[in-house]
Amino acid sequence: MKILVVGANGQIGKHLVKLIQENENLEAKAMIRKEEQASYFKDLGAEVAIVDLEDEIEEIAKAAEGVDAIVFTAGSGPKTGKDKTLMIDLDGAVKTIEAAKKANVKRYVMVSSFDTSREAIQSAPEAFAPYVVAKHYADDWLRNTNLDYTIVHPGGLTNDPGKNQVQLAEKVERGQVPREDVARVIVAALENDSTIGKAFQVVEGNTSVEDAIKSV
Amino acid sequence: MKILVVGANGQIGKHLVKLIQENENLEAKAMIRKEEQASYFKDLGAEVAIVDLEDEIEEIAKAAEGVDAIVFTAGSGPKTGKDKTLMIDLDGAVKTIEAAKKANVKRYVMVSSFDTSREAIQSAPEAFAPYVVAKHYADDWLRNTNLDYTIVHPGGLTNDPGKNQVQLAEKVERGQVPREDVARVIVAALENDSTIGKAFQVVEGNTSVEDAIKSV
Repeated sequence: MKILVVGANGQIGKHLVKLIQENENLEAKAMIRKEEQASYFKDLGAEVAIVDLEDEIEEIAKAAEGVDAIVFTAGSGPKTGKDKTLMIDLDGAVKTIEAAKKANVKRYVMVSSFDTSREAIQSAPEAFAPYVVAKHYADDWLRNTNLDYTIVHPGGLTNDPGKNQVQLAEKVERGQVPREDVARVIVAALENDSTIGKAFQVVEGNTSVEDAIKSV
Repeated sequence: MKILVVGANGQIGKHLVKLIQENENLEAKAMIRKEEQASYFKDLGAEVAIVDLEDEIEEIAKAAEGVDAIVFTAGSGPKTGKDKTLMIDLDGAVKTIEAAKKANVKRYVMVSSFDTSREAIQSAPEAFAPYVVAKHYADDWLRNTNLDYTIVHPGGLTNDPGKNQVQLAEKVERGQVPREDVARVIVAALENDSTIGKAFQVVEGNTSVEDAIKSV
């Protein structure tokens, strides 16, 4: 199973490509913006595609040709300018969804924000709300497709080493989660078709990722 | 026919409320953010509702109760921060659409940007593209409802006095148009049900607004 990782050069993306390459059933194609970012992925034996999320859908679809799944883990993050929130977190995400359709890639895993509901928009701190809005509409766009999607809503991301111990359900208490464990969750979701059509929140907890994903 | 004008205190909005109040078949309810903005509208004999587009959908729906149509002509404009582009031009617009549904208001006129197509996003200057993205998704949201919508795509807006001479079609050459004539177009669209389910661009031209709207 070959997976296009969109946002491979991000912090979750790097963990994810590494885990995919370590898994004998999976191989990664890292979508990155710049040639200078390629060596990390080539050293892992992963294929690389140089595409910018502000490029046209056709360019992204070309990168997606022949893969079996797309993972969207790009993110301007809540700290970049709001112009990038619109161009990457919303429109960039939607373009990869449209590219999936064009390239006949049915499986799509979206890394979202912890809570992208209408209620979350209304209660978000002012500086964070635009990011939640962007993720809300990207998730909504994906839900309204016929793709085999999974939406992962991680808690507050940390750089702690992954413990492979999570709590995972449609709704969980807000908490933190290491980026490495989010990457583990994505891999487990890709390997478990019962996650298709599902959205779940994930924070650190007491269950192995494998068991947590099986219970979704 | 009673019309809730969202963004009444904007430049098109002020023209629009005035034209509505001058029309014996129509009456305006001006949705504005602050009590201090109310006197202009009260002097015109218009009703006023104080609601912020960052408020909850329920608040907007309350303002929409009992009206026959909603016109969205709010806009953070391309020059405000991109956070407001997300919160007002995209999410604010969508919330008024959802409020229309809640309040059983079937008729909805959206004042959009001149071109909100995918091609327009890709070819827009970098500083303008996020605004086009926001308007693109707001228009798309409206198209996917069962509302009796009309989407007006005006050319470059000027403060010149309206001439009541426009060119109006699904696609026209890019040009300018006085805000006052855009307000005239909105009134004519509200009075002409053949504009339901239609989207059109409008710039200055050689046809009266009334004739131009009839030919849509």
